[in-house]
Amino acid sequence: MAEATEAPTAPAAQEQNVNPWSVSGEVDKDGKVKPINYDKLVDQFGTKLIDEALLERFERVTGHKPHRFLRRKIVFSHRDLEVILDKYEKKEPFFIYTGRGPSSTVMHIGHMVPFELTKWLSDVFEVPLVVMLTDDEKYLIAKSDREIDEFEHFGRENAKDIIACGFDPERTFIFSDYGYMGGEFYKNVTRIAKRINRSTADACFGFDTSTNIGKIHFAAIQAAPSFASSFPEVFGSDRTRTSNIPCLIPCAIDQDPYFRLTRDVASQLRYAKPSLIHARFLDALQGPGSKMSASIEASAILVGDTPKQILKKINLYAFSGGQPTLEEHREKGGDPEVDVPFQYLKFFLEDDEELEQIRQDYRSGKMLTGEIKKRCADEVTKFCLAFQERRAKVTDEVLDRYMVPRPLICRGISSDTLGAKTAETKVTGDVKDPNSKNQAKKMEKLRLAQEKKAQKAREKELAKAAAAAAGSGEPETVALRTVATSETGPN
Amino acid sequence: MAEATEAPTAPAAQEQNVNPWSVSGEVDKDGKVKPINYDKLVDQFGTKLIDEALLERFERVTGHKPHRFLRRKIVFSHRDLEVILDKYEKKEPFFIYTGRGPSSTVMHIGHMVPFELTKWLSDVFEVPLVVMLTDDEKYLIAKSDREIDEFEHFGRENAKDIIACGFDPERTFIFSDYGYMGGEFYKNVTRIAKRINRSTADACFGFDTSTNIGKIHFAAIQAAPSFASSFPEVFGSDRTRTSNIPCLIPCAIDQDPYFRLTRDVASQLRYAKPSLIHARFLDALQGPGSKMSASIEASAILVGDTPKQILKKINLYAFSGGQPTLEEHREKGGDPEVDVPFQYLKFFLEDDEELEQIRQDYRSGKMLTGEIKKRCADEVTKFCLAFQERRAKVTDEVLDRYMVPRPLICRGISSDTLGAKTAETKVTGDVKDPNSKNQAKKMEKLRLAQEKKAQKAREKELAKAAAAAAGSGEPETVALRTVATSETGPN
Repeated sequence: MAEATEAPTAPAAQEQNVNPWSVSGEVDKDGKVKPINYDKLVDQFGTKLIDEALLERFERVTGHKPHRFLRRKIVFSHRDLEVILDKYEKKEPFFIYTGRGPSSTVMHIGHMVPFELTKWLSDVFEVPLVVMLTDDEKYLIAKSDREIDEFEHFGRENAKDIIACGFDPERTFIFSDYGYMGGEFYKNVTRIAKRINRSTADACFGFDTSTNIGKIHFAAIQAAPSFASSFPEVFGSDRTRTSNIPCLIPCAIDQDPYFRLTRDVASQLRYAKPSLIHARFLDALQGPGSKMSASIEASAILVGDTPKQILKKINLYAFSGGQPTLEEHREKGGDPEVDVPFQYLKFFLEDDEELEQIRQDYRSGKMLTGEIKKRCADEVTKFCLAFQERRAKVTDEVLDRYMVPRPLICRGISSDTLGAKTAETKVTGDVKDPNSKNQAKKMEKLRLAQEKKAQKAREKELAKAAAAAAGSGEPETVALRTVATSETGPN
Repeated sequence: MAEATEAPTAPAAQEQNVNPWSVSGEVDKDGKVKPINYDKLVDQFGTKLIDEALLERFERVTGHKPHRFLRRKIVFSHRDLEVILDKYEKKEPFFIYTGRGPSSTVMHIGHMVPFELTKWLSDVFEVPLVVMLTDDEKYLIAKSDREIDEFEHFGRENAKDIIACGFDPERTFIFSDYGYMGGEFYKNVTRIAKRINRSTADACFGFDTSTNIGKIHFAAIQAAPSFASSFPEVFGSDRTRTSNIPCLIPCAIDQDPYFRLTRDVASQLRYAKPSLIHARFLDALQGPGSKMSASIEASAILVGDTPKQILKKINLYAFSGGQPTLEEHREKGGDPEVDVPFQYLKFFLEDDEELEQIRQDYRSGKMLTGEIKKRCADEVTKFCLAFQERRAKVTDEVLDRYMVPRPLICRGISSDTLGAKTAETKVTGDVKDPNSKNQAKKMEKLRLAQEKKAQKAREKELAKAAAAAAGSGEPETVALRTVATSETGPN
């Protein structure tokens, strides 16, 4: 997946700009960077807000209280999430697809957000999960001279971090593009690429004359894992079945353009359209309107940071919503909404009541800047240490098991049997697959054409032989009816 | 490989236009289509004409009299053919790469020209040959609704036709893009794609806003087989060795833009640049300035046509250089240069003296139109019948053997050992591979970084445990020097 590489520094007034290659908040005429306006994004992208009614339905259908990200509107937007809930209710199959663009070995706590969401969804729904490592994409867009195997290495290391989020090895298939490209996956890539023209890609991603053709093409690769038929080892080879199995894609909101495009193409291919669930960005330490970057120390807390580093970064760099002096702060109170330590607590502190108490105390001035920073550092440290402990156990051998293409077992059901029509399975409407009948017709037509050709060849040979025997100058086609030889075996 | 789909019909004056997607001769202001001006193409493309000196060297070096195509300037142009002759002289390795875009099961006699050339080169040089079936490309550009497996089927059928040209199974590897995509081949595709930007692709191929992103990207796939490192099963996995093994690409002249681009990229990748040898087009039956198309009956003789069909097509459709009446023809004679039957004899009649005699007789009027048409039909019929006889023996089993990725044996040497430095091998200059040293350095750096990280993690754990034991609020980093655990195995 693409990610922004630097926090915005442009002082000139400009509009908010969010796409898979860069994220920047609006800059007003004073050069001040404003927070990302997520409502505007929802409007601009055309997604839907996740409202209370949907959250209530979610809880009713799954029996699970929504994750704190959902409760707190960190995960705030979706496309067709109801379709997934419908499937879940009817016990019809779906899967989850997410990914990581391995631009380095270093992951920061912002990266963990979609993966924590994904892990939670995976545990709640207990459905297959595929995780794509876009090592090819990172190679294609890298400005440096790095070789491919470095990106493969980054992918493996990132995959270990991902596993450390707690994904179930029975239900999770992790793959790298360089490792997996080919076969049915590649066929779907070409089906998708055929249906995206250059002007659409430009409009979606802002490509220009200097963009390399690999980057232009990559949208087709990012789309392919949305379709179960891309993974025959996981879901089986029967495209009649697999083309009806939709997926749910948890991702950061800047990835939406890829999948908006994917949904259009899915319709054309008569594949089930992917549903999406979007997360906000974790503000960079510098504050609202920015996005964390693993390569900029003052912007990001890394999952591998020590407690000392975490505290130092928060103390030194975290944008504060507090007042400049103690007196002013006691009088006016702090602003939790722009305070980065508070925002991080929103992401990392589980207890709603405790969070609310902190909010009120900071708002009233009862809690000081130094105190909220400390509270935040403790919470983030707790998260990181727990992560590092799990991470330490993820060896190459553990990783390799996740990376074997294989059926995934969810609630005792093997993923290569999903969607099979049985007496129990309630299928909504006919499973229409005109392609398959057309296919059979075309293949039969081709087979007959081949037989005719083989018969002709036979007749020619016989005619030639006959002519040679008769000694005439010109061979004539002898109207022999011979049994067509089947020189073309099964294809 | 792309091919033109129709003979030109445009009456408006326009310049000659030759590229992988379409071929049309200049149209003068009277709406007359002129023959392809190959000298102009050579100028425009920047290739070199194959002159007598080069042909003499060819014969000297290989001990083989040049093929009639070369003798008659049907194969007329090249890039770096001398480099290949140098390699051959020094007994240094190279291979041959050619291909076919399987748009249908039907191949015409024009298609046979590059394959006959390739077979001859393969026999003369006795080096490995790879043949690519661009089933993905044909799917990507098809305007019809055909499914992928139809193009795979076309590919297999075309491959049988190709085999029927007489390629040696020991030296020849045939593959389809859909069957082979992945692994090292795909890695090279991305290395190439990264180095072709959109404006270059546009200039080369004339893409526009409606071009789909698969077609835009395909240039990288067509380029990839130029590099031995794309085929580890054939040439081995040692890129130090394989990056120095050049290939020779026999193709029709309209394919040159792809490979001009490939040569540029090869330099950037420090891969040996492919050499090229170009053939003219066989004129369509309608005459000069046109290119045959398997889908237009009046333009093409198909390799599967019967003797009757061949004679009929030549009689009915072949553009004649003769005079309208017998008297005029006896008086003025015919023009062999525009006469399609004569042109075909140039392609198919082996004997130089016989050809020359026919030229003189037709030029003088001694030979009539009907007679030259008959002579032509006989020669083409001979070619096609011999082809059909060989084709009848190519079963799926025979084809499958050509399609196994494997080392190829040429003169007793296995292709996965080519280029290995031995006492006997004379290598011109140092085999420089800075990449490999950089690689080793980078991987070592990554390994050390990983060890440091692992050690940090260990220190954190110990510190945490120590702090817990000490009962203090804040864990401190304990400066322990422990042996770094090797939790990352070999990558």
